Amino acid sequence: MEQLEGKICVEAALNARQRKISLIIIRSGLHAGQIQPILDEAEQQNISIKYASGAELDAMAHGKTHGGIIALATPKPPLSWEVVLERIKYQTRSPGLLLLEGIDDSQNFGFTLRSAEAMGIDAVLLKKHLWDFDGAAVSRASSGAFERMPIALLDQVDKTLPRFKNAGLKLFGCIANAKRTIYDADLTAPAILAIGGEKRGLSAAVRNHCDTFIKIPMATDIGSLSLSHSASVVMAEMMRQRIFRDRNQSPK
Amino acid sequence: MEQLEGKICVEAALNARQRKISLIIIRSGLHAGQIQPILDEAEQQNISIKYASGAELDAMAHGKTHGGIIALATPKPPLSWEVVLERIKYQTRSPGLLLLEGIDDSQNFGFTLRSAEAMGIDAVLLKKHLWDFDGAAVSRASSGAFERMPIALLDQVDKTLPRFKNAGLKLFGCIANAKRTIYDADLTAPAILAIGGEKRGLSAAVRNHCDTFIKIPMATDIGSLSLSHSASVVMAEMMRQRIFRDRNQSPK
Repeated sequence: MEQLEGKICVEAALNARQRKISLIIIRSGLHAGQIQPILDEAEQQNISIKYASGAELDAMAHGKTHGGIIALATPKPPLSWEVVLERIKYQTRSPGLLLLEGIDDSQNFGFTLRSAEAMGIDAVLLKKHLWDFDGAAVSRASSGAFERMPIALLDQVDKTLPRFKNAGLKLFGCIANAKRTIYDADLTAPAILAIGGEKRGLSAAVRNHCDTFIKIPMATDIGSLSLSHSASVVMAEMMRQRIFRDRNQSPK
Repeated sequence: MEQLEGKICVEAALNARQRKISLIIIRSGLHAGQIQPILDEAEQQNISIKYASGAELDAMAHGKTHGGIIALATPKPPLSWEVVLERIKYQTRSPGLLLLEGIDDSQNFGFTLRSAEAMGIDAVLLKKHLWDFDGAAVSRASSGAFERMPIALLDQVDKTLPRFKNAGLKLFGCIANAKRTIYDADLTAPAILAIGGEKRGLSAAVRNHCDTFIKIPMATDIGSLSLSHSASVVMAEMMRQRIFRDRNQSPK
């Protein structure tokens, strides 16, 4: 079981219906207007509500941001990559996926998912063997985006990545020493943006399948961006290019 | 005194010479090649070195990323805004500043500084009365950028912001409900990008002085970017526009 803390995560998990929620604990006296959407959805899904004192909630909570609401839930299950692939085949707008590798920190993963959702990413592929992170911590850092975002584990990239490429997606590898900048690559077509962890970057296994390597130009040799900030800048650039393509295609 | 932990922060603080470092503690047996630049610079600056066991360093450290190096240092002092203003008046390339408001978390502040340095920001203005954050925590999250970045407190914005605007800087306020996107604003001229905290956004005091309001277009109504990720995307866009301006101006 995972313990979801805070209104944002609990509401996101309720609405996404990816987890089985067994109990929601609410601080007695919490303003009804604040929690009405949660109470309504819980009733629809037949989920028990328990009221407790602030001290009891504080004692249960792992973090300090529960704000009087905690839910006990099964972990969010991963999607299979086949399902992600099927879904994007049938979507009308150009798919944009994010492939993450070497991301071990719950907070970084959560931040990245939050940005991915805001920047219109359709699904996140995680190059990882096991779905072994702390889903509650990821959810909290992601501001609930973790609950909503389609996420699949990607293993055996030599078998799986060609399947995505055969479906028409171009694989862009983000590496520091690429010659081409993100601004000089065409990110409007169906694409997977691959980003590796700060220590090791993208593995050779993933690099082998990349169609194009791209980099974010930096102001100095000293400075650098963290993984979640790099990812945000690249995803924003993909979105910018797509906005301008759509503007140019629309009648004036 | 603040306790700087890890090679990156200690080396950045040594090189920036903004803090007085009284002692550097190094784990006995740490590979000399790794720490030679630190030893050399410490000798030049006449700073004592002490060797200790890994257990002693672990016991002293606040975090887990000291990697065998800890330094005791005075806090990094803020610059005065007058100094920042003087400096940018005399710089040849178009200045780009970041104005932050309502940022209380050391980690978010650190992340933002790291991105600011990578995206070529000349100085950061903090709308805040007191220089009261945990400089060691900020430094760690910033990957040392905190040590190098010129940072000034900005108080009494009704007096200070007009001084920057009189020097030719345009003030761009980043707010969620702006009509103009960051892609439709000209960020190539001398500029201050103003970004507020996630809870309250920019204060009326700062908004009153903004020349233009801009927003990052988002994919959905639900999603959002954190302060440090928003800042990174806006700063990257300023840098993108300046790169393309320079390309267009250079002989082909």
